Amino acid sequence: MVDVAKRAAVSVKTVSRVVNGEEGVRPDTKARVDEAIRQLGFRRNDSASDLRRGRAEGIGLIVENMSDPFYSVIGAAVERVARLQRHLLLMGSAEGSAERERDLTGAFLSRRVAGLIVVPAIEDHHWLAAELAAGTPVVFVDRPASGLSADAVLTDNDAGVRSAVEHLAARGHRNIGFLGDNPEFWTAGQRLAAFGSATAALGLRSDLTAMGPHEVEGIAALVETWTRDSDPVTALVTGNNRLSVTALRALRRVGKRLALVGFDDFELADMVEPAVTVVAQDPAAMGEQAAHLLFRRLAGEGGPARTVVLPTRLVVRDSSHLV
Amino acid sequence: MVDVAKRAAVSVKTVSRVVNGEEGVRPDTKARVDEAIRQLGFRRNDSASDLRRGRAEGIGLIVENMSDPFYSVIGAAVERVARLQRHLLLMGSAEGSAERERDLTGAFLSRRVAGLIVVPAIEDHHWLAAELAAGTPVVFVDRPASGLSADAVLTDNDAGVRSAVEHLAARGHRNIGFLGDNPEFWTAGQRLAAFGSATAALGLRSDLTAMGPHEVEGIAALVETWTRDSDPVTALVTGNNRLSVTALRALRRVGKRLALVGFDDFELADMVEPAVTVVAQDPAAMGEQAAHLLFRRLAGEGGPARTVVLPTRLVVRDSSHLV
Repeated sequence: MVDVAKRAAVSVKTVSRVVNGEEGVRPDTKARVDEAIRQLGFRRNDSASDLRRGRAEGIGLIVENMSDPFYSVIGAAVERVARLQRHLLLMGSAEGSAERERDLTGAFLSRRVAGLIVVPAIEDHHWLAAELAAGTPVVFVDRPASGLSADAVLTDNDAGVRSAVEHLAARGHRNIGFLGDNPEFWTAGQRLAAFGSATAALGLRSDLTAMGPHEVEGIAALVETWTRDSDPVTALVTGNNRLSVTALRALRRVGKRLALVGFDDFELADMVEPAVTVVAQDPAAMGEQAAHLLFRRLAGEGGPARTVVLPTRLVVRDSSHLV
Repeated sequence: MVDVAKRAAVSVKTVSRVVNGEEGVRPDTKARVDEAIRQLGFRRNDSASDLRRGRAEGIGLIVENMSDPFYSVIGAAVERVARLQRHLLLMGSAEGSAERERDLTGAFLSRRVAGLIVVPAIEDHHWLAAELAAGTPVVFVDRPASGLSADAVLTDNDAGVRSAVEHLAARGHRNIGFLGDNPEFWTAGQRLAAFGSATAALGLRSDLTAMGPHEVEGIAALVETWTRDSDPVTALVTGNNRLSVTALRALRRVGKRLALVGFDDFELADMVEPAVTVVAQDPAAMGEQAAHLLFRRLAGEGGPARTVVLPTRLVVRDSSHLV
């Protein structure tokens, strides 16, 4: 290290800082140290103690629940882009808790991530404003930040739900039930509102809604109630992939064959019986776009916060042919 | 900080180290500093700049591919245990690359994780020995470490594959094909070997094996070949959940109804047509056990490396009733 310091005309402490990836070293100084190390033929010894000082750059991703394939596909897509940019991806899940989201954010920032991609939990994010101002880019996915102006990648929830309702109405369904998630979640609220306006625009009933959490038993009971009427519900729209799967199980349990259109595609939607018609989002594209926005900010791109809204696609399968 | 240092009878530098979560502070000194902070009524201000200095402890998890539900369920289970222990979970995927696994390991260690849980890629881990010796516990999941003595949580692959073969043989199948993953992966090699010994023990053909990677087209072609014979293959055993889904699609494509038993359960195995008989592993239990082993080591438990082997469970559904 003394030799490197001499050649780079810096102190040994500065060399140590560069080697350990510490902050507070000017880029040109860092470049001079790196060049001196290279010229002296210093080779990084891949012992674990050197790995511990590893300087690999990383970005952080906070999702709601990593065991939900919607989020894990976003994660895999972000990771692909990060790898091309020679960054590692560190991921954590906040489980819908604002407190855990803050803890994770702090844990990532204190562990020197270059930037963050966040699927936000339900509360506001004004506390991140200082971090953004200090130059750590943050991109939100699936739901926008509240209390903060930041880049975001969203799905066109309104058009997606409308396409589901119009598809069912075109097949003659007049009473459509909507099974959504807790409306405190931004997407759940958006989709509920979209269901209301789409049904109203077509002169259909808008009041057949039930917002979760939902279990098989609860949906089964609801279906029994909704179909007992003299003017029964004949079709369901579900607000996300978890609810589609749960609704499928509930319909099988009560032995009713209501038409079903689910929001979100899921892996075996085409292989289950009946194959499920879905409003497909593109979580891989969402992850990619979010990562691209982040790396553009990291590369120094300025300008106001941007919102990218991705379209949905109606994938018609057997479940919407039922009456 | 001066007041805290005085009250705790330590230097300001030591207080700074404790507050910033740096290493090299003796536990009793740290306790004294924490107590002094508490007595002086110092409250952590949750501004982003304080979050950046966040002291939340974390453990790292390296899996093969976070978008595979097998790994995301392990991850969710590890996270549940970590949360009870007031640790955050940081996760990354190595995509089967030993180099990425090393990079991630270094990234986690340099970011002060307390311990690591690793689903190892194909190469050896002797380079982690120094880290283990230095007191960072590492637990391996799904596959053992090579070149290193470390705690591991595994599935009983041998008994699992044997139960699949015996189940099919009991239903009269004599020619069973085995579709496995790249045998350089430890689990794939284990399951192939188990298929060989189980078929041999029953006097069945052991040579009907094809090791992947596998796509729908490849499996479809293989099924055509295997069923063209005068003494055709009538049943398949698949080596993991990805292969079960791909085989299901391939069988549907070629219009053949071979019996099928898959290794690994998967979410909609009971809802697809035909519902798939599986040898169920318990990835949630694997993640939990691994986390428990890790936190016991973090709590100071010594002793030689332990290996926990979890049993499998045959879940009989429609796909193995076919001949």
